[in-house]
Amino acid sequence: MNTGDTAWVLVSAALVLLMTPGLAFFYGGMVRSKSVLNMMMMSFAAMGIVGVLWILVGYSMAFGDSIGGVLGNPLEFAGLNHMLNPDSVVGTVPSTVFAGFQAAFAIIAVALISGAIADRARFGAWCAFAAVWSLLVYFPAAHWVFSFDGVVSERGGWIANTVKAIDFAGGTAIHINAGAAALALALVLGRRRGFGKDPMRPHNLTLVMLGVGLLWFGWFGFNAGSALGAGPLAGIAWINTLGATAAGMCGWLLTERLRDGHATSLGAASGVVAGLVAITPACSTVSPVGGIVIGLVAGIVCAYAVGLKFRLGFDDSLDVVGVHLVGGLVGTLAVGFLATDAAPVNTVNGLFYGGGVDQLWRQAVGAVAVMLYSFVVSWVIAKVIDVTMGFRASDEDELQGVDQTQHAETGYDLTPIAIGRRPGTAAPLADAIGASSHWGQGTRTTEDVNS
Amino acid sequence: MNTGDTAWVLVSAALVLLMTPGLAFFYGGMVRSKSVLNMMMMSFAAMGIVGVLWILVGYSMAFGDSIGGVLGNPLEFAGLNHMLNPDSVVGTVPSTVFAGFQAAFAIIAVALISGAIADRARFGAWCAFAAVWSLLVYFPAAHWVFSFDGVVSERGGWIANTVKAIDFAGGTAIHINAGAAALALALVLGRRRGFGKDPMRPHNLTLVMLGVGLLWFGWFGFNAGSALGAGPLAGIAWINTLGATAAGMCGWLLTERLRDGHATSLGAASGVVAGLVAITPACSTVSPVGGIVIGLVAGIVCAYAVGLKFRLGFDDSLDVVGVHLVGGLVGTLAVGFLATDAAPVNTVNGLFYGGGVDQLWRQAVGAVAVMLYSFVVSWVIAKVIDVTMGFRASDEDELQGVDQTQHAETGYDLTPIAIGRRPGTAAPLADAIGASSHWGQGTRTTEDVNS
Amino acid sequence: MNTGDTAWVLVSAALVLLMTPGLAFFYGGMVRSKSVLNMMMMSFAAMGIVGVLWILVGYSMAFGDSIGGVLGNPLEFAGLNHMLNPDSVVGTVPSTVFAGFQAAFAIIAVALISGAIADRARFGAWCAFAAVWSLLVYFPAAHWVFSFDGVVSERGGWIANTVKAIDFAGGTAIHINAGAAALALALVLGRRRGFGKDPMRPHNLTLVMLGVGLLWFGWFGFNAGSALGAGPLAGIAWINTLGATAAGMCGWLLTERLRDGHATSLGAASGVVAGLVAITPACSTVSPVGGIVIGLVAGIVCAYAVGLKFRLGFDDSLDVVGVHLVGGLVGTLAVGFLATDAAPVNTVNGLFYGGGVDQLWRQAVGAVAVMLYSFVVSWVIAKVIDVTMGFRASDEDELQGVDQTQHAETGYDLTPIAIGRRPGTAAPLADAIGASSHWGQGTRTTEDVNS
Repeated sequence: MNTGDTAWVLVSAALVLLMTPGLAFFYGGMVRSKSVLNMMMMSFAAMGIVGVLWILVGYSMAFGDSIGGVLGNPLEFAGLNHMLNPDSVVGTVPSTVFAGFQAAFAIIAVALISGAIADRARFGAWCAFAAVWSLLVYFPAAHWVFSFDGVVSERGGWIANTVKAIDFAGGTAIHINAGAAALALALVLGRRRGFGKDPMRPHNLTLVMLGVGLLWFGWFGFNAGSALGAGPLAGIAWINTLGATAAGMCGWLLTERLRDGHATSLGAASGVVAGLVAITPACSTVSPVGGIVIGLVAGIVCAYAVGLKFRLGFDDSLDVVGVHLVGGLVGTLAVGFLATDAAPVNTVNGLFYGGGVDQLWRQAVGAVAVMLYSFVVSWVIAKVIDVTMGFRASDEDELQGVDQTQHAETGYDLTPIAIGRRPGTAAPLADAIGASSHWGQGTRTTEDVNS
Repeated sequence: MNTGDTAWVLVSAALVLLMTPGLAFFYGGMVRSKSVLNMMMMSFAAMGIVGVLWILVGYSMAFGDSIGGVLGNPLEFAGLNHMLNPDSVVGTVPSTVFAGFQAAFAIIAVALISGAIADRARFGAWCAFAAVWSLLVYFPAAHWVFSFDGVVSERGGWIANTVKAIDFAGGTAIHINAGAAALALALVLGRRRGFGKDPMRPHNLTLVMLGVGLLWFGWFGFNAGSALGAGPLAGIAWINTLGATAAGMCGWLLTERLRDGHATSLGAASGVVAGLVAITPACSTVSPVGGIVIGLVAGIVCAYAVGLKFRLGFDDSLDVVGVHLVGGLVGTLAVGFLATDAAPVNTVNGLFYGGGVDQLWRQAVGAVAVMLYSFVVSWVIAKVIDVTMGFRASDEDELQGVDQTQHAETGYDLTPIAIGRRPGTAAPLADAIGASSHWGQGTRTTEDVNS
Repeated sequence: MNTGDTAWVLVSAALVLLMTPGLAFFYGGMVRSKSVLNMMMMSFAAMGIVGVLWILVGYSMAFGDSIGGVLGNPLEFAGLNHMLNPDSVVGTVPSTVFAGFQAAFAIIAVALISGAIADRARFGAWCAFAAVWSLLVYFPAAHWVFSFDGVVSERGGWIANTVKAIDFAGGTAIHINAGAAALALALVLGRRRGFGKDPMRPHNLTLVMLGVGLLWFGWFGFNAGSALGAGPLAGIAWINTLGATAAGMCGWLLTERLRDGHATSLGAASGVVAGLVAITPACSTVSPVGGIVIGLVAGIVCAYAVGLKFRLGFDDSLDVVGVHLVGGLVGTLAVGFLATDAAPVNTVNGLFYGGGVDQLWRQAVGAVAVMLYSFVVSWVIAKVIDVTMGFRASDEDELQGVDQTQHAETGYDLTPIAIGRRPGTAAPLADAIGASSHWGQGTRTTEDVNS
């Protein structure tokens, strides 16, 4: 046990957990104001549901002794009771700290998917999906990629130990995985009413920028925390995370400027996320200039990839495919080109560093395996939920807005209450808005609880 | 001195400090738009006032050598000058770091209370209350609960050392304390105009969700930082904080869904806070499954407790009693049931682990003592302020909104300035709103400073 | 290499990086709603541009072996490739971690300047300025102040090693530097249309408070992280950062209350920043009570200094001069009065501690040198950009708002879409607003990408 390593992973765990509220704001700001709460609630619900499942069985399914390389023994660490023992460690940190850090990964993987189904999902169905998807897709995939032989258990997952694909912080297990699931959900639920016709602009770009600010901040825990210690490995992950995101933003903004004439704030935010996604698998094995190259490529490629949905006609509303699946593929494959054995710990050279195509193939196998498994199983889960519970909100509910119909709330009540409201006079604009005082009955801070 | 422990407590101190802005947003979003700034200012003012007082005398009153177990010697560490000495440590961290960490607790304890008096308090009176309450209630209570014999001073407080109630991170000293004070203030100030009749819905639920996101993030410093080091004790506190909040959210949302038909975002936020409050005293002594149980119970109980104010008729506007007092009681008593000596450091077993009712009684004594002391003294302080300075804003000021009347500002000026404002044309909606351009004269970024 | 020190600097680096999004919100909330995105984009662009430049040449220009005390060798560490070596350290932390920490300083220094040119700058010109200013002003100034002989390279900068001014965390290199550059830009671009006549109130004070909350949080990394380790030096910087900001808020609010009759939330936010700026150079060398004094003085002085622009007629829109230049001077000079050799590491006494005026002169020389250099070179850069590219937006663009004209976006679309939108009915207010559905065409989440 090393206190410095433990301090860093404790912080990193909290940083990664903060990413999910960050994602909630990033996604929430991008939808119309009638769906902002539902969008945020899909992320928050992931924290509640996956947080509990992780402690009960998820950790064990990911890090328990491997059943054939495909799944950890679900009973071995169920409930985490063994972690009360102060001698229970993973590497140089208490196993509680490692479990907490990995919990936050499981949570955000689920939350990411929700971007594909903005404005039109029934909340109960989403909660069911979150639970089942964690159990059938994420916990196994995390086992494949993150469970190394002899670290937590004697035997780990097949991608980490047999394929030996390099995925330092989750390009496959998190981003390709969530992106493929997002595509499946977008297909099962179908397009929003008006997709491709009505403007569906972000209703609050300050919220989007807040979201990306918190995501960026938290991602330093995601990437550099994956070193599981405070040393040179964390350091190289940190500086590469900075370089790739800075370059990702530049790449996206330049693309916009040249293509559309304007560099937008939504583009800046998207470029940051594209850079972050792409550097995630690669941050420990490339040089700082390599990190900049990966970010720049991801920024440009993703700026084009987000247009695919309009061409192909799937309503991946907030571009989970265009940014997380595509960005994840860029980064995972980039390791095969740009890895250098000069990096701390790493012994692999990519194609550009004289290592041939050996690692590139391993990267491709890992990426494709997670992508296909996730797409197929996610599609089946979503379809079963749709047939049994109904996944998609009714047309009428969608039109009125899922905030009101799913949650009985409305995001904002900025009715300028005080306008003209010198005592004794009526509020003219409030009158004009009329019905507004009858929506969004929360169950707190209102008299309705009692009536 | 251990650098890893110090790093963790340095970070934790900053995390706990961030909770107060987080609380400001959580509370600010829940009130109507005419009070949002005042609501936030009550939290921010706590940072200013209590921050200064803590350095001058608060730390010494809490951690100075005990005068009869009830108060630390106020002069012993006044001004913290002794901490310039690099050898001055508490446990394995510099005493400056410990003092900073504890400062953030003092600040948020005060800020929490403000939720009870939304929309109707005079700002100057609140500032006076914040100062006096810190001196007469918080600093003593922190001494009782957090000052262990022989850690900072030879003799500490009576609850920690004589009653031996277990309150790892502040269920009594912070949450029961603030909740009881909140009840006292709600009674002294009386109900808002229209309480129980007018809808008083949250004006900005994205701000509420932001607040709860930051509170959650910061709370990992609050709970796991209370280990004062980066080791197994911090780890168990971390993982229990995760499990309890996840379960708290699930408990509240399920209650809403079954009772009201809808799971709301305000419910998710409230469930997280209920879980956080309840696990605060217990996070070091229960198992991960125990943590989930505590969160679940707190989520359900508090979801019902927040309706009490309508039944009993006290206007605890933002549910400080229903969440912090009730949640604090749930968590503090839960230690008496669920504590296990398998947890690191802890040697006590609760009722369910074969320890009988011994610890349960100790928990009850600690909880009730803080609750009664806080309620009585807070009531007296508030009453004296009300009689001398006037605590409550005038009816007219309340109607117009305390942002304008107390702070001469307005939270939002989203007048769509650019609508129709192609040069040379008038702005139709801006005209309709009319008087709006004459409110909220800040003293910066406006010409009025100079006029 | 020490893991505890490394953990703290890793966290601090992320904290300082978070300050720039924090600044984006702080600044963004203070402008009118038609400029909020542009304001935020100036900060975000600094992250992209300066982040890349820092890795390519900036670190080397700041910390490479000194060329005559004025500039580090730009080629020595270009690309940071040497940092892949796990034995490459600065003090007790990996050099990647030190480089990341310093990168965040470079980024925020640039972003701070943007507050002077709200509402009226062309975005491309700002990006050019950010790049050139980093290369010609910030990297050299950082070398002067932060590069100590024998730490990274054999020879460092002239202010640190020859003048021996004490600037622990960047009062001169960051705040005085950015403040002087801000003045130059305000002069080159000229005043906004309506400056001193039209009300230009903050459009969203909740965003301002969010910004200051994140700035405050991140600043603990800025100041206490500058210790480059987790020990007594970080501790004293931490507690002084708390005391000064608390006192800064109190000072500003008291000034407002006595002068204007109301304590405002904008004043609270500004007082916090004034306190933070002033304690930045001094936090390691003064006592906790000294820190409170510095914050209080800065809060009062800056509350008056922000009125200067109206008297002198320069449109430093968001008070970079009044808060960062003036606050930076207060803090830098305060070291000459209040430094005490009782503080850890420090051996210098200020005037009030019997050290005479020796250190005060050194402080003044450092402050004035950075101020003059920055003002002159910034003015030249801005003027060249203005003459060649055009720095200022056209009158028409300024009137319509730089969000639309520079970024083709609009911050908020809170059109109450659902009002009255029971299926089959029209949306009355949306109709009244009319043209709104045609602005702010982002390139994502809208059909326009494809058309």
